[in-house]
Amino acid sequence: MSDCTPPARPLRIILVQPDGDEGARVQALRAALALPDYEIVAVLAADMFLPAQVARLQPDLIVADAESDARDVLEHIVIATRDAPRPVVMFTDDETPATLDAAMEAGITAYVVDGLRAERVRPVINVALARFRQQVRLLEELTGTRARLAERKVIERAKGVLMARYRITEDEAYARLRSMAMNKNIKLAELARRLLDIEDLLG
Amino acid sequence: MSDCTPPARPLRIILVQPDGDEGARVQALRAALALPDYEIVAVLAADMFLPAQVARLQPDLIVADAESDARDVLEHIVIATRDAPRPVVMFTDDETPATLDAAMEAGITAYVVDGLRAERVRPVINVALARFRQQVRLLEELTGTRARLAERKVIERAKGVLMARYRITEDEAYARLRSMAMNKNIKLAELARRLLDIEDLLG
Repeated sequence: MSDCTPPARPLRIILVQPDGDEGARVQALRAALALPDYEIVAVLAADMFLPAQVARLQPDLIVADAESDARDVLEHIVIATRDAPRPVVMFTDDETPATLDAAMEAGITAYVVDGLRAERVRPVINVALARFRQQVRLLEELTGTRARLAERKVIERAKGVLMARYRITEDEAYARLRSMAMNKNIKLAELARRLLDIEDLLG
Repeated sequence: MSDCTPPARPLRIILVQPDGDEGARVQALRAALALPDYEIVAVLAADMFLPAQVARLQPDLIVADAESDARDVLEHIVIATRDAPRPVVMFTDDETPATLDAAMEAGITAYVVDGLRAERVRPVINVALARFRQQVRLLEELTGTRARLAERKVIERAKGVLMARYRITEDEAYARLRSMAMNKNIKLAELARRLLDIEDLLG
């Protein structure tokens, strides 16, 4: 019997460094990540080109190194991961409380102060990947709950508009919304939104 | 001029250890935390008495040590922090993927594999406190959004009950709910909930 499970593809990693140089710390990270299940696809500077590069390379993980100036690296990473969240591990010596708060607010998955030792990089990455999965679940739940609340508000408002305009009951208004949505093959909330848009236009 | 700012009170810390013994690792943690801004209020075993002890001592931070058996310590800490979340820093050598996922799911603030070196304990705690504040904000937002959605549903249902029972319009039903809530001096959602409870009782 041959082994049919495909080999797990390596984790595609982007290294981000204040100036994108291959300094001693990047060398140390390269050494720590020299394992078959990691692939460093690029070493990039934390600058205005980072977002486009991240969008193009679609890494599974961003490992950022920011010896002392974490704030600046942080800002570029925030922009680069805003639309498509990715796990970010940051190695730094910057312990400034404001920077810590900014890093957490930005959703940095692991913020490791003074921990850039080769043997610790792998466990830090494993914990970060687990934390990222959990953060994604939590944010999805928040986004979903917010969306349901917003939909409910918009449907209620649209119902109110129909009730006033056609002097019909709530049930009738709801039935009318539903049948319009079905005819147009769109979601009830989407129909309600369009109806309110038209209402706004007509004043 | 005398210095009138009161000294910040030290962070009250509980150390949790599988058997509560003062072993070499607890000694190392004691040494790392021997600073004026930390106060170790107890060294406790991860057992069935932990929740009551945590509730009694109200620590600002729980530092758990779980060399190899993180899963067991984790379970006791989850129970001890379920009702009143607290920052939890866990030092362990346990890298089992299932344990990592369980730790993240349980909301462990910092899960540090093989990082129990004195000079790293302080930055780990600082990052954990910042992460905890951010997690609390996120969870509060989720809880708040969920509550608003639930309240809206209950108010809508109560409105429907009044509309059917008294053959009144939606606006009239809403006005009636509001005036009842004001008379009883309770929140609209709470009134709606009670009204639905009575409705259930009466069938």
